[in-house]
Amino acid sequence: MDFSPSPRAADLTARVAAFIAEEVTPVEAEYHAELARRRADRSGPSPWEPQPVLEELKAKARAQGLWNLFLPKEHAGEYAARFGTDGGEGLTNVDYAPIAELTGRSAIAPLVLNCNAPDTGNMEVLLRYGTQAQRDEWLDPLLDGRIRSAFTMTEPGVASSDATNMAATAVVDGDEVVINGRKWWSTGVGHPDCRIFVFMGLTDPDADRHHRHSMVLVPRDTPGVRIERLLSTMGIQDEPLGHGEVSFTDVRVPVTNILSGPGEAFGIAQGRLGPGRVHHCMRLIGLAELALELACRRGLEREAFGKPLANLGGNRERIADARIAINSARLLVLDAAWKLDVGGPLNALSEVSQIKVAVPTMAQQVIDMAMQLHGGGGLSDDHPLAAAWTSARALRLADGPDEVHRGVVARLELGQYGARR
Amino acid sequence: MDFSPSPRAADLTARVAAFIAEEVTPVEAEYHAELARRRADRSGPSPWEPQPVLEELKAKARAQGLWNLFLPKEHAGEYAARFGTDGGEGLTNVDYAPIAELTGRSAIAPLVLNCNAPDTGNMEVLLRYGTQAQRDEWLDPLLDGRIRSAFTMTEPGVASSDATNMAATAVVDGDEVVINGRKWWSTGVGHPDCRIFVFMGLTDPDADRHHRHSMVLVPRDTPGVRIERLLSTMGIQDEPLGHGEVSFTDVRVPVTNILSGPGEAFGIAQGRLGPGRVHHCMRLIGLAELALELACRRGLEREAFGKPLANLGGNRERIADARIAINSARLLVLDAAWKLDVGGPLNALSEVSQIKVAVPTMAQQVIDMAMQLHGGGGLSDDHPLAAAWTSARALRLADGPDEVHRGVVARLELGQYGARR
Amino acid sequence: MDFSPSPRAADLTARVAAFIAEEVTPVEAEYHAELARRRADRSGPSPWEPQPVLEELKAKARAQGLWNLFLPKEHAGEYAARFGTDGGEGLTNVDYAPIAELTGRSAIAPLVLNCNAPDTGNMEVLLRYGTQAQRDEWLDPLLDGRIRSAFTMTEPGVASSDATNMAATAVVDGDEVVINGRKWWSTGVGHPDCRIFVFMGLTDPDADRHHRHSMVLVPRDTPGVRIERLLSTMGIQDEPLGHGEVSFTDVRVPVTNILSGPGEAFGIAQGRLGPGRVHHCMRLIGLAELALELACRRGLEREAFGKPLANLGGNRERIADARIAINSARLLVLDAAWKLDVGGPLNALSEVSQIKVAVPTMAQQVIDMAMQLHGGGGLSDDHPLAAAWTSARALRLADGPDEVHRGVVARLELGQYGARR
Amino acid sequence: MDFSPSPRAADLTARVAAFIAEEVTPVEAEYHAELARRRADRSGPSPWEPQPVLEELKAKARAQGLWNLFLPKEHAGEYAARFGTDGGEGLTNVDYAPIAELTGRSAIAPLVLNCNAPDTGNMEVLLRYGTQAQRDEWLDPLLDGRIRSAFTMTEPGVASSDATNMAATAVVDGDEVVINGRKWWSTGVGHPDCRIFVFMGLTDPDADRHHRHSMVLVPRDTPGVRIERLLSTMGIQDEPLGHGEVSFTDVRVPVTNILSGPGEAFGIAQGRLGPGRVHHCMRLIGLAELALELACRRGLEREAFGKPLANLGGNRERIADARIAINSARLLVLDAAWKLDVGGPLNALSEVSQIKVAVPTMAQQVIDMAMQLHGGGGLSDDHPLAAAWTSARALRLADGPDEVHRGVVARLELGQYGARR
Repeated sequence: MDFSPSPRAADLTARVAAFIAEEVTPVEAEYHAELARRRADRSGPSPWEPQPVLEELKAKARAQGLWNLFLPKEHAGEYAARFGTDGGEGLTNVDYAPIAELTGRSAIAPLVLNCNAPDTGNMEVLLRYGTQAQRDEWLDPLLDGRIRSAFTMTEPGVASSDATNMAATAVVDGDEVVINGRKWWSTGVGHPDCRIFVFMGLTDPDADRHHRHSMVLVPRDTPGVRIERLLSTMGIQDEPLGHGEVSFTDVRVPVTNILSGPGEAFGIAQGRLGPGRVHHCMRLIGLAELALELACRRGLEREAFGKPLANLGGNRERIADARIAINSARLLVLDAAWKLDVGGPLNALSEVSQIKVAVPTMAQQVIDMAMQLHGGGGLSDDHPLAAAWTSARALRLADGPDEVHRGVVARLELGQYGARR
Repeated sequence: MDFSPSPRAADLTARVAAFIAEEVTPVEAEYHAELARRRADRSGPSPWEPQPVLEELKAKARAQGLWNLFLPKEHAGEYAARFGTDGGEGLTNVDYAPIAELTGRSAIAPLVLNCNAPDTGNMEVLLRYGTQAQRDEWLDPLLDGRIRSAFTMTEPGVASSDATNMAATAVVDGDEVVINGRKWWSTGVGHPDCRIFVFMGLTDPDADRHHRHSMVLVPRDTPGVRIERLLSTMGIQDEPLGHGEVSFTDVRVPVTNILSGPGEAFGIAQGRLGPGRVHHCMRLIGLAELALELACRRGLEREAFGKPLANLGGNRERIADARIAINSARLLVLDAAWKLDVGGPLNALSEVSQIKVAVPTMAQQVIDMAMQLHGGGGLSDDHPLAAAWTSARALRLADGPDEVHRGVVARLELGQYGARR
Repeated sequence: MDFSPSPRAADLTARVAAFIAEEVTPVEAEYHAELARRRADRSGPSPWEPQPVLEELKAKARAQGLWNLFLPKEHAGEYAARFGTDGGEGLTNVDYAPIAELTGRSAIAPLVLNCNAPDTGNMEVLLRYGTQAQRDEWLDPLLDGRIRSAFTMTEPGVASSDATNMAATAVVDGDEVVINGRKWWSTGVGHPDCRIFVFMGLTDPDADRHHRHSMVLVPRDTPGVRIERLLSTMGIQDEPLGHGEVSFTDVRVPVTNILSGPGEAFGIAQGRLGPGRVHHCMRLIGLAELALELACRRGLEREAFGKPLANLGGNRERIADARIAINSARLLVLDAAWKLDVGGPLNALSEVSQIKVAVPTMAQQVIDMAMQLHGGGGLSDDHPLAAAWTSARALRLADGPDEVHRGVVARLELGQYGARR
Repeated sequence: MDFSPSPRAADLTARVAAFIAEEVTPVEAEYHAELARRRADRSGPSPWEPQPVLEELKAKARAQGLWNLFLPKEHAGEYAARFGTDGGEGLTNVDYAPIAELTGRSAIAPLVLNCNAPDTGNMEVLLRYGTQAQRDEWLDPLLDGRIRSAFTMTEPGVASSDATNMAATAVVDGDEVVINGRKWWSTGVGHPDCRIFVFMGLTDPDADRHHRHSMVLVPRDTPGVRIERLLSTMGIQDEPLGHGEVSFTDVRVPVTNILSGPGEAFGIAQGRLGPGRVHHCMRLIGLAELALELACRRGLEREAFGKPLANLGGNRERIADARIAINSARLLVLDAAWKLDVGGPLNALSEVSQIKVAVPTMAQQVIDMAMQLHGGGGLSDDHPLAAAWTSARALRLADGPDEVHRGVVARLELGQYGARR
């Protein structure tokens, strides 16, 4: 149980920290202020139009070799060297975890380092399951930061927590696959650079439970693809990425666009989700750390009833509880990352579900505490807390609701004592 | 301890229920859909422009005598008869509580019945402390639903949980009072009909702790008043009322605009807040009931893993806990209302603070549970849950943060055993 | 919704309060000290031998007409007049609730006023379902305080939360009923005066689910009845009543000892448990009030780090939360009592299950807080807190575990929206 | 951050596991049954008399080299080799942690392996601060398992959470030190082999805050030492060790019995408590693991309403939450152990306080869940759960209440942002 990063990872982590401190943090307040102005002023530029500073920062990050650091050691291959990952090879989950935590403190750092979801997961899928032609067409520009992608899985009409409910179809018709259905919470579709969707749908209802669905590459411009609307999460739209509701009506793409062959979607999803959940959780830990830092600073700066807020009532206890909760959660994620590194997704089924339950809940509570210490301001967009809270809350549902992950943990626990399911 | 409404109140409650069912509910979905369209489409009408349906519903409500029902029995006087309250007199807190609960289930019902905060509190203040001239000028049109009002107390620069921190000033200068400072979370200032502000500021820093501040009527059009921006709460702006940040720069109004005389603000606030908190809490109970109903319906309609969601894992336990929590909270509010009716604000200091702690926290939890059962949709504006959650969360800060109210409850509890403070 | 006690009940409540203050409280510390000495000193008198002070206090209580106050208005009949209930008639649940709360503050007051479980429930069953002969033989001496009784329902070998699991049998054999099986948690069997058991067992496995079991009067001295051992609850034995494990081996009693006829046990239990749960819950509220009082007193008396404990960290917030929790819970119980009074057990199914979930959990938390404020002493038998905690914890299982009651509440809640079960 | 045990430690851990499985577990049920019989039968042997099986097991453990494994690598010196620690040297905190966890699953294993508190802490103190003579006299027989010891610090009359409240005195009078005062919760004093007390008392009230108290070796037989009584924790007395209240009246011992010199008690306590808290916490994790195992087994074996208990309501979710909570807590303790190993107590101040808050609370909750799944039996002494719960609850107070440790964590957290205290 060794959670120490490699020397190279430790160096990269330090450089990411410095980059964020020197390049990202100084511009972040103005970035958000501009976003707020664009939201409020309906006659000026749209908040959906990416601000130029993002491209400037991407160029700087890439120039420093802080680019595509998410690339997994196991699968990075030549791509690490070709697309800027310093040292020419990928990182393990344990190595990447502290980097993900750092980027999680900033709303724009993941974009700037080309390490944001869902692109990371989609790139990993292409890396592992894409043909050379698919990789040339889509992976290269994604790794290059020229285009973005979306993952369309969840559906508005069914309880998507049970993936077998999925109603959208991907039917093979000769050398084409015909796609119909409606997806939502497709993150990133609001961005003008979003060019490619990874779509998941039902191909063979008669196959066994885990071989019914296919994952298909669907270029956004394909006829029949329509972005119906952009959803808000507790009123927040996450411009310029956004979360879209997308309809697919008789969309036709070549059958070769099916990743890893018809019926293979579950296998792909399995491999995609483990590391992806570690990344999400580590970013949330970064957010929770930021919230705790803001709570401490606010608690010392503001006074009421003749004392700094931190010294009133139970505030110190809440700060202590937040520290304990964050440290516990980080260790749990590192342990899951380590188990993934050591034995792959099947070695860490329970652990990955454990962090998926524990971390968003922890982050939600810590951020709620920090909001409370900030008074009304904590609820507004003057501080990053309201947006942070929303991220944490959404992650209690995204990638599987807490209840489903608790079910996985319990099944594996009871399985030790003979329970079949 | 008798929480039964009078026969007249029971009849009014039934009529309000019928009115909401027949007139409000049928149009509410379209009202919110239109609001969502206005938010998304930056080229069409603004979400800040009140939709015509509101005035139509106000007229219908008034025609049925369901108008200004908040008017307190003790102070309503001739106004109840003049402004449409059925029966010509006001209601007790116990009588009004179930009506407030019903209106709380709808985002627009309080507006439609002319019973929404902060107008209710401001009207009550004018009723109790306004001169005849002030009442003629401001109370009549407010009760008539022709204008709206705001209450400007909280400040961005200080911890407003401690009211003695208040930095804005209301200095008497001859026969004028000069107002300077910055306020925020002034609910209602986004509405075009908002014409009058009740401002609270420091008049005499050398007076005793509870006689330093004054409450002043400041017409919105007075030179020096400027609405700096409209705040969002977790991304939600509550159009068309909104919550504003307002600056006051050398604003001058006649000294006669000071309510109840210089230095009397705390006394007024005391009387204003007890019933106001009961109203807030009862509306939140209505919201929590709505959330529980939506959770039950969703839990029975949607299926996953071969069962209705309600029958999976701990969902039934959560539904039971929500029922218990709502019932407990409602009884606690009724008890506070009854104590207010029987002995006035000083008789219910602990009870009013108790509900201010217990009810928003309860509502936040119940609504969070309902959101979780709705999956991603629960976070979006397709359901009233995200907005409901935001209301509940904000009320853990508005009208005094939980921590301050817990302090009041503890002080009174320990006072029984000899603690001086 | 009127929770006001009748004038007679208010007077009785005041007199019970005075009696406890003047007669019970002054001797209670010494009572417990003597119990502790008897437990520690294995060579002296046994803690199972009732201390003489109990009989002295019973005589005093009876002399003041504070005797058998639990007798329900609906069923008391002549017994109230005959056995000392002041005024000659019983009380409603709402009337009796505050009396039960008062007695709950003391470990011996329920015994002293002849109002302790399970005797109260057994007496009520005899009152409602007993024949004249059964009442003459058992109810009279119970009401007289000359004998005690036990209720034998829960079994060690099965999950008794599901009553249909019950494995003990009560088989009719001619004019006798033959009883076999093993019961535990039979409260009161340790007392030398415990003379009669109400036994519940399976009579007809082929009858419908709610007509399989019978309730039978089994005199303790009947051959085949054997008290196997006395159980401890978290190490506490509740001498001199105790909780026993009892075996029944070919025990034969006349078939006329079956209460209300074979197969009627569930109907009897239904009626018995509603008021019984209200009593339990009100006594727990008394315990929680006692714990809060002790916490406040300790919090003001003891100092650490230069301040009274009450002023350290989150202690005031915890005291406030305890006050809120107790008040909420009391109102919930009063509401259940009122619904029982107004419409009987079927009118209050959800409410009775709600209090059974909410009150023991609340009491456990409040008492845990008070223990913490007492430091190590809070865990010892120097204070009533450890025993109080144990009572509250046990009641999360006794009379049905929380989980079963949550199930009832959820079933009734979802039933409103069409769920069949 | 490397939590991997050394190969030698891994081997020892495996051997301890095997020893417990083969030697301890098979006799443990009978051990507790005998204890229960002794408690119930006042005429037979006392529960305070150690059962012979303990000495038999000690001999076996020692023969296998599983003896005094707690000895710290840093300070073990020659003693490891002399007193049976396999390999002749001590273990790091990270190495010993999994062994402590294993022993924590059994109520007698710590005794059997000569690794139980408070002897371990006292032996460590003698090792580090004892003179050769003191070590010859007391450390040798303690390491040999021939005698036992107690630590007398907490006092009944003051809030001992603030150590400066300590009222007992250790006054130097020539070449003697005179001891007066009353201590309680002195674990182990009930055992007939308990021969030596480590006493802490006030020596110089005028010295600075951390140099006022001394730690003194007081042989139990010294005139003036009197064991006033043995305390119960929630009714449980923890025979044969027990927790005593001890009075010291003009007790005189040579001044050379003062450990490390007058006024040095705080420095000694500091060093003693870090590893001691890690041990306590790891044992509690063992207890929580045991409780979870029992909950799973019971959940699968017992049926109600036609299903195994595990499949009813929220039980699976609770099992999942318990797994998550235990794993998080274990990692947190390993991290504290690692920080102690790497940098000593001052390097792990926050971490040690964090585990002291997090682990007992976690264990209490997990055990409470397991008790609930066991129904009434879970509260009795038929299962180890009631005793386990009591241990966990007591540890929220022992070695400093949660509130004090939260204060330490908050102080260090806020200190990063400039708070002085």
